[in-house]
Amino acid sequence: MNTHVDFKDLEVGYDVPALPGMDEADIQTPCLVLDLDALERNIVKMGNFAKEMGVRHRVHGKMHKSVDVALLQEKLGGSVGVCCQKVSEAEVFARGGIKDVMVSNQVTQPAKIDRLARLPLLGARTIVCVDDPDNVANLSAAAVKHGTQIECVVEIDCGAGRCGVTTTQDVVNIAKLIDAAEGLKFAGLQAYQGAMQHMDSYDDRKAKIDIAVAQVADAITGLKSVGLECDIVGGGGTGSYYFEGNSGVFNELQCGSYAFMDADYGRILDKDGKRIDQGEWENALFILTSVMSHAKAELAVVDAGLKAQSVDSGLPVVYGRDDVEYFKCSDEHGVIKDPKGVLKVNDKLKLVPGHCDPTCNVHDWYVGVRNGKVETLWPVSARGKAY
Amino acid sequence: MNTHVDFKDLEVGYDVPALPGMDEADIQTPCLVLDLDALERNIVKMGNFAKEMGVRHRVHGKMHKSVDVALLQEKLGGSVGVCCQKVSEAEVFARGGIKDVMVSNQVTQPAKIDRLARLPLLGARTIVCVDDPDNVANLSAAAVKHGTQIECVVEIDCGAGRCGVTTTQDVVNIAKLIDAAEGLKFAGLQAYQGAMQHMDSYDDRKAKIDIAVAQVADAITGLKSVGLECDIVGGGGTGSYYFEGNSGVFNELQCGSYAFMDADYGRILDKDGKRIDQGEWENALFILTSVMSHAKAELAVVDAGLKAQSVDSGLPVVYGRDDVEYFKCSDEHGVIKDPKGVLKVNDKLKLVPGHCDPTCNVHDWYVGVRNGKVETLWPVSARGKAY
Repeated sequence: MNTHVDFKDLEVGYDVPALPGMDEADIQTPCLVLDLDALERNIVKMGNFAKEMGVRHRVHGKMHKSVDVALLQEKLGGSVGVCCQKVSEAEVFARGGIKDVMVSNQVTQPAKIDRLARLPLLGARTIVCVDDPDNVANLSAAAVKHGTQIECVVEIDCGAGRCGVTTTQDVVNIAKLIDAAEGLKFAGLQAYQGAMQHMDSYDDRKAKIDIAVAQVADAITGLKSVGLECDIVGGGGTGSYYFEGNSGVFNELQCGSYAFMDADYGRILDKDGKRIDQGEWENALFILTSVMSHAKAELAVVDAGLKAQSVDSGLPVVYGRDDVEYFKCSDEHGVIKDPKGVLKVNDKLKLVPGHCDPTCNVHDWYVGVRNGKVETLWPVSARGKAY
Repeated sequence: MNTHVDFKDLEVGYDVPALPGMDEADIQTPCLVLDLDALERNIVKMGNFAKEMGVRHRVHGKMHKSVDVALLQEKLGGSVGVCCQKVSEAEVFARGGIKDVMVSNQVTQPAKIDRLARLPLLGARTIVCVDDPDNVANLSAAAVKHGTQIECVVEIDCGAGRCGVTTTQDVVNIAKLIDAAEGLKFAGLQAYQGAMQHMDSYDDRKAKIDIAVAQVADAITGLKSVGLECDIVGGGGTGSYYFEGNSGVFNELQCGSYAFMDADYGRILDKDGKRIDQGEWENALFILTSVMSHAKAELAVVDAGLKAQSVDSGLPVVYGRDDVEYFKCSDEHGVIKDPKGVLKVNDKLKLVPGHCDPTCNVHDWYVGVRNGKVETLWPVSARGKAY
């Protein structure tokens, strides 16, 4: 356990769902449970993939929001640092001992720019995305004010339809402004194709990344023509890392969900047409839930509803069971089809959440289990760090 | 301000989105903002409705999870106490000074039953729902162990398809067990029809509650025939309170969302065919968000995505604007159609969340504003109290 949490005054059931040393059977529900063996295997595996492909892995901390998991990814997976999406998240990681932190997002509000410029004072290399020429002067002024350096990557929108510029000319223009600005360092490119990660077909995903790779290669050529080299060419997710990693163009991956897995990612197919949760990655994250009512013979009601997860990408799946099905969700309840009446009140089920990132964000704790025992509790350190 | 929060060591942008006394314009985003004037008017209005109908109002604390809002509902709306869904939530309210707390849900796990039985020791009348005969003995044993009294209402499933029994015979059987059990007191009935609250048509909603009222009236008759009287006949929500309140059968309402309003409730129609957010209730709750990227002429990206809200009941609506539209949501971003290019980076928008309850549950603070100033910050006291 890396986080130094003082469990002395924490009440099980009020402050925490469990305490280290407890039997797995005594965990209070609903809560997030991590299968530590599966988590560690996922982390080691992605580390090896990156090594084989000859690229760096900057793990996506916005998925788990946990300093402990990020440190484990450094230790077991050889990650070079984290990326995250908010300045307040970056502060959590920097304060927690991560030495290389990218905010893979735009930072534009004056108060947030000021906080970003102070991040290096916590001992962290600080990198941020830029897609607006006007942002450069503001970042520069803040870095100069605090006597720090902010590294800037230009964000390319390579298909996600969110932040980022779309032409090499715009990339070069912004890069030149960064390069000329006091307190800033031009560090390269950010090009995450978020819109294709969950497409089922491997070939469909490849086609999207081929377009992104060509776009990024063109930008690199444009930058070279004005004498600018990219230290970082970053992107890639759990549904695409092999494309970027083997492209010869990207040099840094930013995968998040692979470590925990979820039901929506689990459904996508690998190059052999096999679901990625059937071999490539293991489910390490579960919502542990209990049956709290079974007043109707064929329906069981469990205690994990909308406040224990995000259902934006579909309902959770009951892990390892095909005799029961989670089919309806309200604020505090999940309703389970139990056609054979196999469940009893207080039975526990493990749910694979539809979407891990926003599900982790509603919980305060990860309960780490191994061999039927609670081995550790890790805080969701950056939970609620949205601003 | 009721909660005694020490703001001395809290950093704006890291710990809190704002501090009392700040200009509204300086609030860090994304965060929840309460229009205190609108909130107070909603609370007073519902209090008056209940008074006119001659019923009690037990406000639903699971919506806001805030001790401060619950105390305001007592003070301005004459509420008799709160209901909530989890033992840990009930503990938060009881510790915060609420003297009458109902867990409008089943409590079945041994450790939770034990905590429930200790709630009266915090000075709170304690009420819980039961839909399972086996639960009665466990509740009784815990109350006896702690020398306390737990009041029990039998939950009727009057159409929601979740917890609760469906026949008068089952109601009577469980009520008799409660009445005979040491440490327990039979308190009445819980009959919340959750499935109809969001039906657009007033007449459709009325038809569903007519069924529920008949079902509850039958149960009351059955109970009377064995000598049992109901102190509490509780139910009703923001989409139905006038039906239960005027039924002559229910005597306690349990409304939650009316105080804050949201986009999904706002769409339902009153008896004159008018949206309930156009006169009946005011929008008091907003997600304040900022434009953080506008690299494409017709699209603005804001900083409130899936981690600032729940989209289970639809996307948020931009308040007071018909020139822009929130149309896409990912973990950290919302994408806004801005066809005329009226938005600039750092512009702020107020979003009406699709569904208030699970949206409040992802935030740590309510920023209360009045006349352009931050008047108060209230913690979402029971945030994350899911177990």
